[in-house]
Amino acid sequence: MKKISVTVWNESEGALGPYEAGIHSEIRDFLSATGNFNVRTAILQQPEHGLTEEVLDNTDVLIYWGHLYHESVEDAIVERIRQKVLKGMGLIVLHSAHASKIFSRLLGTETANLRWREADELERVWNIMPFHPITNGIPEYFDIPKSEMYGEHFQIPAPDELLFISWYEGGEVFRSGCTFFRGGGKIFFFSPGHETFPIYRMPEIQKIIINGVNWAAPTQRPDIFSGNAPEFITRKE
Amino acid sequence: MKKISVTVWNESEGALGPYEAGIHSEIRDFLSATGNFNVRTAILQQPEHGLTEEVLDNTDVLIYWGHLYHESVEDAIVERIRQKVLKGMGLIVLHSAHASKIFSRLLGTETANLRWREADELERVWNIMPFHPITNGIPEYFDIPKSEMYGEHFQIPAPDELLFISWYEGGEVFRSGCTFFRGGGKIFFFSPGHETFPIYRMPEIQKIIINGVNWAAPTQRPDIFSGNAPEFITRKE
Amino acid sequence: MKKISVTVWNESEGALGPYEAGIHSEIRDFLSATGNFNVRTAILQQPEHGLTEEVLDNTDVLIYWGHLYHESVEDAIVERIRQKVLKGMGLIVLHSAHASKIFSRLLGTETANLRWREADELERVWNIMPFHPITNGIPEYFDIPKSEMYGEHFQIPAPDELLFISWYEGGEVFRSGCTFFRGGGKIFFFSPGHETFPIYRMPEIQKIIINGVNWAAPTQRPDIFSGNAPEFITRKE
Amino acid sequence: MKKISVTVWNESEGALGPYEAGIHSEIRDFLSATGNFNVRTAILQQPEHGLTEEVLDNTDVLIYWGHLYHESVEDAIVERIRQKVLKGMGLIVLHSAHASKIFSRLLGTETANLRWREADELERVWNIMPFHPITNGIPEYFDIPKSEMYGEHFQIPAPDELLFISWYEGGEVFRSGCTFFRGGGKIFFFSPGHETFPIYRMPEIQKIIINGVNWAAPTQRPDIFSGNAPEFITRKE
Repeated sequence: MKKISVTVWNESEGALGPYEAGIHSEIRDFLSATGNFNVRTAILQQPEHGLTEEVLDNTDVLIYWGHLYHESVEDAIVERIRQKVLKGMGLIVLHSAHASKIFSRLLGTETANLRWREADELERVWNIMPFHPITNGIPEYFDIPKSEMYGEHFQIPAPDELLFISWYEGGEVFRSGCTFFRGGGKIFFFSPGHETFPIYRMPEIQKIIINGVNWAAPTQRPDIFSGNAPEFITRKE
Repeated sequence: MKKISVTVWNESEGALGPYEAGIHSEIRDFLSATGNFNVRTAILQQPEHGLTEEVLDNTDVLIYWGHLYHESVEDAIVERIRQKVLKGMGLIVLHSAHASKIFSRLLGTETANLRWREADELERVWNIMPFHPITNGIPEYFDIPKSEMYGEHFQIPAPDELLFISWYEGGEVFRSGCTFFRGGGKIFFFSPGHETFPIYRMPEIQKIIINGVNWAAPTQRPDIFSGNAPEFITRKE
Repeated sequence: MKKISVTVWNESEGALGPYEAGIHSEIRDFLSATGNFNVRTAILQQPEHGLTEEVLDNTDVLIYWGHLYHESVEDAIVERIRQKVLKGMGLIVLHSAHASKIFSRLLGTETANLRWREADELERVWNIMPFHPITNGIPEYFDIPKSEMYGEHFQIPAPDELLFISWYEGGEVFRSGCTFFRGGGKIFFFSPGHETFPIYRMPEIQKIIINGVNWAAPTQRPDIFSGNAPEFITRKE
Repeated sequence: MKKISVTVWNESEGALGPYEAGIHSEIRDFLSATGNFNVRTAILQQPEHGLTEEVLDNTDVLIYWGHLYHESVEDAIVERIRQKVLKGMGLIVLHSAHASKIFSRLLGTETANLRWREADELERVWNIMPFHPITNGIPEYFDIPKSEMYGEHFQIPAPDELLFISWYEGGEVFRSGCTFFRGGGKIFFFSPGHETFPIYRMPEIQKIIINGVNWAAPTQRPDIFSGNAPEFITRKE
């Protein structure tokens, strides 16, 4: 079976919190360790942000993490990513990338709009669709001992599938795992991932992202006609 | 009860097909005749396309018809409409406005992508949610004797509600009535409306648009907080 | 405008917690006080549980509260309610009626399956669709100071609309306000309503139930054909 | 990888139309030929209709075909199937099994309600979600030259996913491919399959059913608690 090609994108290559080589390298490493994926990374500072036509043409699933530099991403590259998603590339949007241009552009709403708080508080992630490929092997709920709070109201369209709802010590809830189908592409938003705690080293989190990559990988899609179809489609004899 | 304020937008003011004063005037007239709406019109050629901040601030529901001049609509006005929809303004997207910038921008996909054919063929509109406010009083199905075909695959997100599916003589189907919730706004897409036949004079079509306006009008919305919420929300005593 | 006819059903007529005349009487009274509804009550101990064909034929919206005696409700009456819902009668399922036969029968799953705890704990109800007719006038969130906890995983199909998610002091979340469309009927499940606190006297709760009745009332539905349709439907000239 | 265990159920074992050994045998054979499934069959006339606890405990996906004898299926067996689906068994409901007890029981509506016509007419199946695992490798549309018409209005809840919409020569449309998630189980309804034409020998139809089995197979599900959870869930140290 052909390996799934994954590109992990980050807005910088330096150390962040507990991740000496950056979050993108951390994610690359645990994905690579499965043996099932070909993984590369790309960052904002590269030409075309590392997301050239060629890179994206050879990407089955793009994993996207960003936080402080959303506005630095060029609109032309955002549009390029969007076109690839509509044609079938999977997209996994992590944590603060909820406020990225690409996520807002694909969903149409102001996805930056939510509550947040940095208080090292407990996040409990409840599994709402325990039969979904992305929640395969994930318990009924699991705890992130110290997390950044992301709370409702979150300005997103109703997700196609609501996989996780998070509970926070401070009194909020959040739709923390959601899927969206857009054009030919599958999008998975997953909110845990702040740098105050090595969340991407938790086995549940790694399992969910691995499941997400498998789920978001493109299927074999038909040619789809768009435009003027002048003839009646008659019965094929 | 306060009347609902409706603005009917069109890309030109001249005659079109059977509509001597344009489609916008036709729609204005049958809405006004109900006595329940305050209706005005706006067109592309006016300053700011007739959709100034003031006009939109006083619009509960915007009805949008366009065909040949989608690219002439300024991006800044598109963004203004989008922000008003996200804050609660209703939007009714008619016929060829499927390819408008505002519809694509709110849904995230290439909504221009569909099949079409001008062959004066029969369109039969099937009522899939016969209990919905928008289908109130609409029969199980009704016929449009001569219609432009719009066919699948139509590149839209799965609608929040699928109200109508159309059948065409030539062999296609189409999700011809769909609702989408985006931010605080309700969007209703309704595809019939080509100018080869006086479709907007059909009682079923008028009833559906009238129902749509009532449905899309804003509710009394709460203030919604977005941003840093540093304190835990403690129990109110 | 014709008043909406509401029947409020309860499993007993006696006092319950703070409600001297029972929960059904409490609900009847605040609905009647609006002047917009004709409200009657019915209880388990009446012949046919007070839900005769005649009563249901004259009911636009049935509000259903039950807790200890779900098994005492006769299957024939459950089926009768189901048929009325499928034909268009609205149904509002409150609190412990999540475990009622009628709710499970209409949804297909074991709706009794959830976590619960009686610990007089804080429930915070988050408004997830702040533009919906049922949440009209309801704040972004509101608190129920002492509530019974109902927690996930709740065995329901994905709701057609997810209106509220509740947060509990003890660490759970719950899809506490959900709508379901079944046949011609609209169903609204709303979980707050335990008798340890006079929840049905809270203005937010009363507003939500009043909104729910208005939302669930039947529309003017078409005749729907079912069965053998031997002829091709030809174009009407 | 462990093979998926499939049980194909039919209401009789005899020849039907072009299928000398019955539809169940036909389906068994093309599934077995893939080498990926362990397939057995079961029929109505066997003890417990061939669907004993043991058989169902060893079934990952149940494929169900029935037509004339829905009423002969014992309620206790229907309830047994339902419980297995809620616990994770996949279910594929084919053609006239739309009117089966199990389908109606899991969906809550009168799923027998639809239009039908036997006129050997053309059915064109449009692929509405061309990126879904079930439509993997299926063209934008394909034709069934002679089919029984099944038409709207079909009394089902809004499907979790709408995969196919069929067009019929005689003027109807139909939601011919739908998924439903119920409890832990995935359900796929697929309407083509009348015996007037060897539909189950068409490569597209076989591909869709094979895809459906792979999609409906259970995931590794967590233990889910239901009942009284007296303690607050405290932070795990």
